[in-house]
Amino acid sequence: MSAGNQPADRRRAPGSISAVKTVGEVGERELIAMFTTAARSVGGSGDVVIGSGDDAAVFVPTGPVVVSTDTAVAGRHFRFDWSSPRQIGARAVVQSAADIAAMGGVLTGVVVSIGCPPQTPVDRVLELNAGIVEQSHRYGARVLGGDLVSSAEVVLTVTSLGVLEGTAAVALVGAIAGDVLAVSGPLGGPAGGLAALSAVEHGADPGLLEQFADLVAAYRLPAPDLSQGRVAAVAGAHAMTDVSDGLVEELITMSGASQVRLDVQSSAVPQASGLSELGAALGVDPARWALAGGEEHELLAAFEPAHVPAGWTVIGEVSVGGTIGDEAGARVDGVPVGEIRGWQSFTDV
Amino acid sequence: MSAGNQPADRRRAPGSISAVKTVGEVGERELIAMFTTAARSVGGSGDVVIGSGDDAAVFVPTGPVVVSTDTAVAGRHFRFDWSSPRQIGARAVVQSAADIAAMGGVLTGVVVSIGCPPQTPVDRVLELNAGIVEQSHRYGARVLGGDLVSSAEVVLTVTSLGVLEGTAAVALVGAIAGDVLAVSGPLGGPAGGLAALSAVEHGADPGLLEQFADLVAAYRLPAPDLSQGRVAAVAGAHAMTDVSDGLVEELITMSGASQVRLDVQSSAVPQASGLSELGAALGVDPARWALAGGEEHELLAAFEPAHVPAGWTVIGEVSVGGTIGDEAGARVDGVPVGEIRGWQSFTDV
Repeated sequence: MSAGNQPADRRRAPGSISAVKTVGEVGERELIAMFTTAARSVGGSGDVVIGSGDDAAVFVPTGPVVVSTDTAVAGRHFRFDWSSPRQIGARAVVQSAADIAAMGGVLTGVVVSIGCPPQTPVDRVLELNAGIVEQSHRYGARVLGGDLVSSAEVVLTVTSLGVLEGTAAVALVGAIAGDVLAVSGPLGGPAGGLAALSAVEHGADPGLLEQFADLVAAYRLPAPDLSQGRVAAVAGAHAMTDVSDGLVEELITMSGASQVRLDVQSSAVPQASGLSELGAALGVDPARWALAGGEEHELLAAFEPAHVPAGWTVIGEVSVGGTIGDEAGARVDGVPVGEIRGWQSFTDV
Repeated sequence: MSAGNQPADRRRAPGSISAVKTVGEVGERELIAMFTTAARSVGGSGDVVIGSGDDAAVFVPTGPVVVSTDTAVAGRHFRFDWSSPRQIGARAVVQSAADIAAMGGVLTGVVVSIGCPPQTPVDRVLELNAGIVEQSHRYGARVLGGDLVSSAEVVLTVTSLGVLEGTAAVALVGAIAGDVLAVSGPLGGPAGGLAALSAVEHGADPGLLEQFADLVAAYRLPAPDLSQGRVAAVAGAHAMTDVSDGLVEELITMSGASQVRLDVQSSAVPQASGLSELGAALGVDPARWALAGGEEHELLAAFEPAHVPAGWTVIGEVSVGGTIGDEAGARVDGVPVGEIRGWQSFTDV
């Protein structure tokens, strides 16, 4: 089964010695040495002069540098009973890397800080790190360094570094009247998966998790095609962001930044496969997950109508209007999204 | 009184409205808008294409990029009853920036993640951020972006970005037999200040904090001259690090990385002013603070004997020997530092 489907904890021999050692017993120095070894494994940018294991890493960028940081906290942004440590580590990289893609950048490296209680099993931290390293390699990037500290709960901070390869940065500012809005992939999958996990926790049939395994996998490890960020930049996207806070939140943000009105037709928003069936099973309108779900990291961009890249789906138009903080500047089916924002609670763990 | 001497909490009118609002009440969106405004204030690199407030920041580096990340956790790396939020924020920048200096780099920007409980007073978070912004500006750098999340305790992660301006990176690897070891400034000040705060908490005369105000200030906000990193690189330093974990720990690390033997004479190690008087007052050998104290971020480097920059103090020699993990590869007064390492407990808060 893929890493996206099965928490890794279940795959480990229960009697293995390493499973019972704690971070406090092994110590920071030895763990960082293990991380450094993992970080030096095959993969990623050949432009790294000094990698993990020194005071700082050094790399030679091939263009302007893009940087973003994202923090995920246990119990708030992820749960160890809902995802494997490997998935949680990988997802933290997806989250941060999506911000690089949303500028039109290409991820080249990440630096990572892991905070955890001393009584955390060493295996858990090694699996978190393995997820971080694997996902970085999937993107062609390297883990450049990190920090490990003692904290009350597990806290992951991933700082992503990328480069712009011959395109200008695509900001939140720049959408203009006459543009169309498009998304890089179907929305609502992670929010649907999360809803299924939550429903089962509250007594729904556990068979839901098997039936909607793809949605649950999308929650555990979203798989947006982040190479579409550069595709959009090459196509001349005027403005772009990733859908990390749910579509309606991103519409408010882009409308305010670009000072334009954004109109989305809900029927045009592509929904993740299986979402309508899950909605029927749970008695929820699946459009909510697609419009107000988050954590999916597909890209939302404004293009000239003739320049929408292949594979992107047009979901609306850009027109005159919209100011910062004006929730009426972003509308779904003609309704200001302020009235829909309550749905953002779906993105809470 | 300077920011280094007086916790800022005491300077605020106790009845001010903002002092009672919490982060949970104000919300992430409004706070991030405040942070973005602060980040856009005067200061720092003109090479920033897109700064704080978008998905990611974009800057055009003038040379190879140096990156490092450091996390500080309340109660473990700092205490709100011992330092002001502004000092804590500033110190987090010093810690991370020192890693850039230790490669010979010049700090250009930082990205910051702040985790805090929802019930945290807004003022505390704004002051933390103000300290981060101020200290970054002191170094000629900009705050490029950040993240704000809910967590059980206050957690600060600062990722520093710098550039190498015409010098090669100075790594931990590279010290060779015949080099001398030198430090960029006096050691032990922060560890002394911490010992004074701790002693007063355990019943010592509170007058100690007035008497040794400079040492206490050095703990609250270490002030190493980080421009010495580039000075050392220009002088051709063979290897360098910052003294974040205490001198003996850094000797072990550099000895292992460079595979050389490092011999330090304790009498040659410059001690912070007032350290011997504090040692007498507390009945502690002040050499412990200078040799095994941490958090000071002065620089330690290996140079050809003729190339030690002005202002640096030679404290020892490099000779043949030393392997990774070999504590006998680093010696103080001829004694392997493994026997001194117990002193690292001084660096605990």
